[in-house]
Amino acid sequence: MLNKKVNYWRIIMRILCINPIGTDAFNGEVLKILENLKLGETKVDCVSLPAGNPLHLEYHSYEAMAVADIVRLTYKASSTHDAVVISCFYDTGLREAREVSGMAVVTAPCQAAIDISGHLGNTFSILVGRRKWIPKIRDNVRLYGREHALSSIRSLDLTIYDFINNPNLTYERLIAEGKKAVEEDGAEVIILGTTGQFGFFQRMQDELGVPVIDAAIAPFKYAEFLADTAKRFGWYPSRICGSEAPPKDEIDAWNLFRN
Amino acid sequence: MLNKKVNYWRIIMRILCINPIGTDAFNGEVLKILENLKLGETKVDCVSLPAGNPLHLEYHSYEAMAVADIVRLTYKASSTHDAVVISCFYDTGLREAREVSGMAVVTAPCQAAIDISGHLGNTFSILVGRRKWIPKIRDNVRLYGREHALSSIRSLDLTIYDFINNPNLTYERLIAEGKKAVEEDGAEVIILGTTGQFGFFQRMQDELGVPVIDAAIAPFKYAEFLADTAKRFGWYPSRICGSEAPPKDEIDAWNLFRN
Amino acid sequence: MLNKKVNYWRIIMRILCINPIGTDAFNGEVLKILENLKLGETKVDCVSLPAGNPLHLEYHSYEAMAVADIVRLTYKASSTHDAVVISCFYDTGLREAREVSGMAVVTAPCQAAIDISGHLGNTFSILVGRRKWIPKIRDNVRLYGREHALSSIRSLDLTIYDFINNPNLTYERLIAEGKKAVEEDGAEVIILGTTGQFGFFQRMQDELGVPVIDAAIAPFKYAEFLADTAKRFGWYPSRICGSEAPPKDEIDAWNLFRN
Amino acid sequence: MLNKKVNYWRIIMRILCINPIGTDAFNGEVLKILENLKLGETKVDCVSLPAGNPLHLEYHSYEAMAVADIVRLTYKASSTHDAVVISCFYDTGLREAREVSGMAVVTAPCQAAIDISGHLGNTFSILVGRRKWIPKIRDNVRLYGREHALSSIRSLDLTIYDFINNPNLTYERLIAEGKKAVEEDGAEVIILGTTGQFGFFQRMQDELGVPVIDAAIAPFKYAEFLADTAKRFGWYPSRICGSEAPPKDEIDAWNLFRN
Amino acid sequence: MLNKKVNYWRIIMRILCINPIGTDAFNGEVLKILENLKLGETKVDCVSLPAGNPLHLEYHSYEAMAVADIVRLTYKASSTHDAVVISCFYDTGLREAREVSGMAVVTAPCQAAIDISGHLGNTFSILVGRRKWIPKIRDNVRLYGREHALSSIRSLDLTIYDFINNPNLTYERLIAEGKKAVEEDGAEVIILGTTGQFGFFQRMQDELGVPVIDAAIAPFKYAEFLADTAKRFGWYPSRICGSEAPPKDEIDAWNLFRN
Amino acid sequence: MLNKKVNYWRIIMRILCINPIGTDAFNGEVLKILENLKLGETKVDCVSLPAGNPLHLEYHSYEAMAVADIVRLTYKASSTHDAVVISCFYDTGLREAREVSGMAVVTAPCQAAIDISGHLGNTFSILVGRRKWIPKIRDNVRLYGREHALSSIRSLDLTIYDFINNPNLTYERLIAEGKKAVEEDGAEVIILGTTGQFGFFQRMQDELGVPVIDAAIAPFKYAEFLADTAKRFGWYPSRICGSEAPPKDEIDAWNLFRN
Repeated sequence: MLNKKVNYWRIIMRILCINPIGTDAFNGEVLKILENLKLGETKVDCVSLPAGNPLHLEYHSYEAMAVADIVRLTYKASSTHDAVVISCFYDTGLREAREVSGMAVVTAPCQAAIDISGHLGNTFSILVGRRKWIPKIRDNVRLYGREHALSSIRSLDLTIYDFINNPNLTYERLIAEGKKAVEEDGAEVIILGTTGQFGFFQRMQDELGVPVIDAAIAPFKYAEFLADTAKRFGWYPSRICGSEAPPKDEIDAWNLFRN
Repeated sequence: MLNKKVNYWRIIMRILCINPIGTDAFNGEVLKILENLKLGETKVDCVSLPAGNPLHLEYHSYEAMAVADIVRLTYKASSTHDAVVISCFYDTGLREAREVSGMAVVTAPCQAAIDISGHLGNTFSILVGRRKWIPKIRDNVRLYGREHALSSIRSLDLTIYDFINNPNLTYERLIAEGKKAVEEDGAEVIILGTTGQFGFFQRMQDELGVPVIDAAIAPFKYAEFLADTAKRFGWYPSRICGSEAPPKDEIDAWNLFRN
Repeated sequence: MLNKKVNYWRIIMRILCINPIGTDAFNGEVLKILENLKLGETKVDCVSLPAGNPLHLEYHSYEAMAVADIVRLTYKASSTHDAVVISCFYDTGLREAREVSGMAVVTAPCQAAIDISGHLGNTFSILVGRRKWIPKIRDNVRLYGREHALSSIRSLDLTIYDFINNPNLTYERLIAEGKKAVEEDGAEVIILGTTGQFGFFQRMQDELGVPVIDAAIAPFKYAEFLADTAKRFGWYPSRICGSEAPPKDEIDAWNLFRN
Repeated sequence: MLNKKVNYWRIIMRILCINPIGTDAFNGEVLKILENLKLGETKVDCVSLPAGNPLHLEYHSYEAMAVADIVRLTYKASSTHDAVVISCFYDTGLREAREVSGMAVVTAPCQAAIDISGHLGNTFSILVGRRKWIPKIRDNVRLYGREHALSSIRSLDLTIYDFINNPNLTYERLIAEGKKAVEEDGAEVIILGTTGQFGFFQRMQDELGVPVIDAAIAPFKYAEFLADTAKRFGWYPSRICGSEAPPKDEIDAWNLFRN
Repeated sequence: MLNKKVNYWRIIMRILCINPIGTDAFNGEVLKILENLKLGETKVDCVSLPAGNPLHLEYHSYEAMAVADIVRLTYKASSTHDAVVISCFYDTGLREAREVSGMAVVTAPCQAAIDISGHLGNTFSILVGRRKWIPKIRDNVRLYGREHALSSIRSLDLTIYDFINNPNLTYERLIAEGKKAVEEDGAEVIILGTTGQFGFFQRMQDELGVPVIDAAIAPFKYAEFLADTAKRFGWYPSRICGSEAPPKDEIDAWNLFRN
Repeated sequence: MLNKKVNYWRIIMRILCINPIGTDAFNGEVLKILENLKLGETKVDCVSLPAGNPLHLEYHSYEAMAVADIVRLTYKASSTHDAVVISCFYDTGLREAREVSGMAVVTAPCQAAIDISGHLGNTFSILVGRRKWIPKIRDNVRLYGREHALSSIRSLDLTIYDFINNPNLTYERLIAEGKKAVEEDGAEVIILGTTGQFGFFQRMQDELGVPVIDAAIAPFKYAEFLADTAKRFGWYPSRICGSEAPPKDEIDAWNLFRN
């Protein structure tokens, strides 16, 4: 009854983590972190976008610049990997990448973190860098259907550069806003609303006493989980209705997704 | 009290219509149509995307390919036009383009048609080419907050090529599904869910006896309306929170949006 | 294909603005303002209700007193005008007037302002005179489907008489509450929740740096826009299902809407 | 601790049933029915609107004609009755009448029937005369917050005159549509969507095997219930925020609600 | 046409109030209170759960311990009573008990209080003992469809033992939080979110000037009301779809609900 | 930065699967299946409820009988296991069991299947045995926030006994209703709405061409996933607000959860 083509005890899952910015400066570090987090059988690759792409995606117009390459990388990964992670809390290009991922599942931080938090507490708050980020994230939460469980989205009033250059200030603000989320807004779970806040979650949950979901880890582990269930049970992405993939001949004729 | 810098009787509105596909084959025809629809003082331009872009946007991965150029064209238009129209019923890149439009308003078919229909009837149905289109359009309707007024989204089971090559069949199906929308689903207004169905709406509304909103006209006239109110009353796009534009120096330093 | 009966460049639009209170004291001033705002081809009329009607509609029971005359005036206007504006932020009698407007479109402040704001920013706040107004306005926002974009409804704690007698205090409060809406509630657009606050919006948007939608202008310009699209494209109000008009013979036999 | 001013065993409740049409032809019959339904201590009065009012409220513009008198009668009843029933399934003027009811509670068919049905089953369907009625009723169900429990609104395709002149056909259609509501739509409770269908509910529930809520009885009994709890426990209508009543001196000065 | 089997003037209603805790210490007092509140013809019984059950239901796992006996008592009551009240503001076991109540209606505090409040004001706030209670109550309000009318749920930061042992502190906090609910949150009605706060509502409404719904009285009077309409009009609980009762033979064979 | 107490490559996860019925007849078979599905390091136990519990949970009153033992078993498992699975598609006792699970995560079929389906397609349909099941499942889908993605809940009109005794008929109906869900309702993913349909999903997805989520596998693999992330990252269940556990001394004093 179960999938005969796999050895259930040792399924190898190849996961591609897309860091959707135009520099590979962080790939090594990210890879090292993910290597440490993965199941034994998982193979991880980490890739960023070609030079010329924006160096962060804080603006939606920057996302627009990056999304074509996210789709291209996903399309390519459809024949080499079992899962793809888009590492931006806006879940940039998630719908678009999923369409061309073939049998590979695609995950992204916001959806993955929200799903996980739904099993750990009744409510959650998201901590973001700046107020700029709130409306799109709120719309995403609404699309995923969890706005009724969203206690708040709180801004740290810090840029991505602040995260990198001033980790102490960042941590201080994370604790301050996280505390308010818990005490004033009624959040039972905290979600870090950026992949650039990696490394803080465990200190935070020790200090705040609630689970703090990291935006880099959540979609990676979720991807690993879904790659596993895909291979074991055939739970590959649907390919009908809105999930229908573009026709191969048109892709080839128009030379799309190559570059 | 009112804006002193304009002559209220004769405001000139320059509108850029972006046909977000990689061919300029239809620009002439579209321009001719729009010239016929515009207010006297309006100046219309029509532009398509550079070659290499997809020839239609039926797939979301195709949208991903096109959105960078939509943003680039909008950014450029921010210094030459008063309004930009993105002519694809998925409202492709609407959020992203709005961010860089400066003082120009940006419109798109689905949002504009839904707004108009809300003043003409209690409910509406959208007629789309294929079932493929439904989930994203339904999500958009939900984001715009009108899912409670959506009677149905009905598929004609026709491709964009069918629309072009077989207008008779297209019209037949439009009438058949439009009739079902009215009689079975309770739609008071019909919205044509593609800019490729232009030219049918008036025959349809004569035959069906309900208003039929055309997806090419609606966002164009809405853009003209908003350009007018922007200039008269200063109702330009908000530039705070989620609508904050990227910083000029970063755009320049990274050479973004230049093409 | 397009409506042959109109000259597209110079459509004359006759708009009736109903000031739904029992005094004509403000009609002249309103008319002067609207004359200044209109497109060149538009003809504006301004009418108030017969004496005996309430002098403001702050209470819903007062609305109940006024709504019959709003319907009567709209019914009469159906043969003389192309659009009708009901100038009260409760959108008093909008559903009822639309039913008898024939081919004329009917607009009202709350719906029009919300539609416009949806193209200028992700979120909006409404500034109202007193807390009294909030529940009905909130219900209207919900009926229009935009409660997810409503940052707040803030009360100035001022009566309509205060607006008239104490414009300085009114402006001060508008700025104070508008600032809180922007800074604390995350509003990207401000909507003035009363037609009696006319004259403040431009100073406010200069000072607050966000678009401020005036409740008298928005429905008037929206009416003009819809009258234009109605005549050009036949986008007249639907007359089926919930929008079905009462039968002419019954109206005549019962002598309704005359007075 | 409890209200000292009443004898808990024999509270006299005076209920005014407003039949909001311009004829008293049915008042006698309605009164006879209600006398039969009431608790022993209840006193019932039945009143219709002055001549000149519409003879039915199928159209929203007719409601607009009737609502001033509904408010007037309620205002008058505030000093003579403990509860007021507005007997039209559109719940015409409910918000407006509640504002001036003083210490009297006001009920109406749709809200009362929905509340009751929520204790008898998970879902409900409403049977209405014509499709015309559906959009406003659906909006009301949404305002009351029960659209998620609404299985369907089904039209009998009968006018109010058909109800009166052709009870056999009416009953036949009620059973046919009620059966479909139960079997196809999953309704556990049926609500009759008009006060003009009185007399059918018991035969229907015998035949269909589900509770069938009558639109004339439900708001009357609910009014009686609320009048009782008001007197016993002081649960009178709130008079703050949106429920604030108009000031007495303004009502008097403007000679409102008199007629 | 009406139910021939009952005397409409003097329907005897037998109501069972289940105090879902494992002690009968409060039954006498509760019974005395309810005797004072009931209609003349009503017979009241009060029962608690067998020893070994939790002494309060503040925790959901405690509810889980108690629900079997709630169902057993309701099943037994289906042949002896006309209505059952489950006296816990979590509405513990409401769905489950309703399934086996036969022709008896079942009510519970949260649903009943919300229904009543919907006729007295536009909005309501619930005052609860501790933050612990909020998520489940909020979910219940959402299931009942009234989250859009919920101004706030405010915690007194008091345990059930505090309610009993320190009524003065309890009252003080009730007034303090009730005042904030009215003044800051916009609540027009206050609902006491625990049956353990009985006795405070009338002083509170005198002091706050808004209706304060007591959580013990509301479901009892609602039960009495529904028992009356059930007997008069046959509005007994639906027994189809989700409300279908378990088969008698299975209950007997498995010896369920016997204790 | 990461949890120092675990070896990331070989975390041992002990999972308890609760089959919430009063017979251990199926435990052996279920255990064998789960052994085949698990990761290498996972230890699985399978337990059913004590005799006297219902043999199925089709009725909500049966759930009420079973929930105390579900909580007891979970409480006990909190010191022996890392995750608990409640194997009933009603997600019986999920909130209640989570409260006492300590550091163990608790999963259930409906929530887990819905989460997974959200990464595989835009929409889903649930196939259930009988219409009886629909309202509670629909309410659960609504509580989880995914009703906007629910294409339909379709009934097979088969009892749990039919599933066991007539697998051919069961499969036939699954395919027939699954096909309608895909073709008529627009479902991109199918969810099997009962743990008693195990064994069909792979044949179904081969035949239907869409992912078919099995209700026994989904929560088990999800539990394994969450147990892994709990141990690695400290993402244990929140224990504040609504997730606060009952106090140990009260549990002991009252001898709760002991059996």
